[in-house]
Amino acid sequence: MSFTVGLDIGGTKVLGVVVDDAGNVVAERVHKSEHGFTALVACCVGLLEHLAHPGTPVGVGAAGLVDLQGNLRFAPNIPGVIEAPLQAELEAKTDRPVIVDNDANVAALGEVTYGAAQGARDALMVTLGTGIGGGIVMNGSVLRGANGFAAEIGHITVERGGPMCACGERGHWEAIASGHALGRMARELIASGRGKAIFDLAFGDVNAVTGHEVGAAASAGDDDALALLEVYADNVSLGLAALANVLDPQRIVIAGGIITLGPLLFDPLHVAFARHIEAAEHRPPIPILPAALGVRAGGIGAAVLARSLLP
Amino acid sequence: MSFTVGLDIGGTKVLGVVVDDAGNVVAERVHKSEHGFTALVACCVGLLEHLAHPGTPVGVGAAGLVDLQGNLRFAPNIPGVIEAPLQAELEAKTDRPVIVDNDANVAALGEVTYGAAQGARDALMVTLGTGIGGGIVMNGSVLRGANGFAAEIGHITVERGGPMCACGERGHWEAIASGHALGRMARELIASGRGKAIFDLAFGDVNAVTGHEVGAAASAGDDDALALLEVYADNVSLGLAALANVLDPQRIVIAGGIITLGPLLFDPLHVAFARHIEAAEHRPPIPILPAALGVRAGGIGAAVLARSLLP
Repeated sequence: MSFTVGLDIGGTKVLGVVVDDAGNVVAERVHKSEHGFTALVACCVGLLEHLAHPGTPVGVGAAGLVDLQGNLRFAPNIPGVIEAPLQAELEAKTDRPVIVDNDANVAALGEVTYGAAQGARDALMVTLGTGIGGGIVMNGSVLRGANGFAAEIGHITVERGGPMCACGERGHWEAIASGHALGRMARELIASGRGKAIFDLAFGDVNAVTGHEVGAAASAGDDDALALLEVYADNVSLGLAALANVLDPQRIVIAGGIITLGPLLFDPLHVAFARHIEAAEHRPPIPILPAALGVRAGGIGAAVLARSLLP
Repeated sequence: MSFTVGLDIGGTKVLGVVVDDAGNVVAERVHKSEHGFTALVACCVGLLEHLAHPGTPVGVGAAGLVDLQGNLRFAPNIPGVIEAPLQAELEAKTDRPVIVDNDANVAALGEVTYGAAQGARDALMVTLGTGIGGGIVMNGSVLRGANGFAAEIGHITVERGGPMCACGERGHWEAIASGHALGRMARELIASGRGKAIFDLAFGDVNAVTGHEVGAAASAGDDDALALLEVYADNVSLGLAALANVLDPQRIVIAGGIITLGPLLFDPLHVAFARHIEAAEHRPPIPILPAALGVRAGGIGAAVLARSLLP
């Protein structure tokens, strides 16, 4: 039996898991991280000391652009960290071999190895959260590209001149299809005088409306909420179809809190996707599935990545 | 010295080349093809009998969706051919091992091996012609996807609700960035009462206006033509940036008659691309280069593909 460690570095905390060679999580721990790179490294070192013996290989998924040498080049969601030699620092500060990749990439590796895309050699994983994250597995390996920056899928333009993205450009997929975008669409609906059932579920506070209230209203059969989910599913499918045209994955895995909507999201999504994919009648259907590993996908995938470091 | 044959199957003709192991084209021949699959196979067989000894491996690039077994599933530009077992038929009718892929995929392989992307392990090739074709090379191999249908890049939506694509959907990249789209944009400009210099170059026949006249007018310094090329370059860059965000290629190669425009196209294209790519300041610039192998790219790449069949 061999073990590896996976760390999933998010905006303000780090999740660490120890995974055995059958994919079981045998230990788990979360640490909060303070501002800046030094604090982040100290946080990871502390986690590793609690979790695993020296020498145990460590895989890391970090939220940002990670180059092929494991440098975290750009991490807009990790405060105070930029152009940071994460892999080299973790190797220097712990007596362990370390490999660092992007968090969405390792999550995709986790879902392909033990989750919703288990057994697929070509898969796409998309996380619909504050933004849109992506991980691509082709021929069984994470597609990294020339610099390690592949799968930055949130910022592809699908609706030129459309809604403003957090990055300052208009019409990016993320701006119309992230989990946050669904909440914004609901608030706009309410501002236009409709969506009363959604509004009521947020106790009349329009600023409290998120995708959760849309889902709850749709579950209760509210027409406005169901129509909104249909528009949102079309938004999501536009980007999914673009990516499927480019990558031809065997399966697509969707992650993010929004997958709790279940068939309310996935049913219209399948319909819209079939409309947007090229030559649908000449190819096998591509299943679009909810992620199976939840918040541990990144940690488990990072631990899978670390297996390449085993002696 | 070993030799392989490459066939490039287009809408109405087949180009065959014999390539040595240094990449030299040592023989070349073009045959016209008649309607239907039987005629197409006969055309290829005739070419092969003229070009190479029995036993010589044959690579084929065909314009359409080609699955991993070498079946040409869907070929809208090859009259009378659909769901056709191309690889199996060519193997049965010739005494040669055969491997079939999509024409744009093998062209990308040709450009990576002997052309504008020589030496790159991760490259994207885009052909701006009647439509938009694409080939992706990652880690030195053609990215085929689960079914062989990857790199269908023309039909990604970039301008939702935008101009109608030949496939019947709106806002596809192909509808605003193919070589044909530039001609259509010029004719629309003329219909709106502008673009006089372009119009004059087509001897006052608006239906004769293509990208060629736009280029000629722009070369002569015509402001309308230069402005039109700037809009067109932005259209092209929207899709290129989307693909670069997803794939992170080391180089991008552009093919198609339109590359004869030279800096008139490539200069505004580089500017617009830098605007659309995510986190440009944190990544090395991605060179966008004109293809170097011209009309032989597909044939040469098909011959390169056939090397995998050498004993």
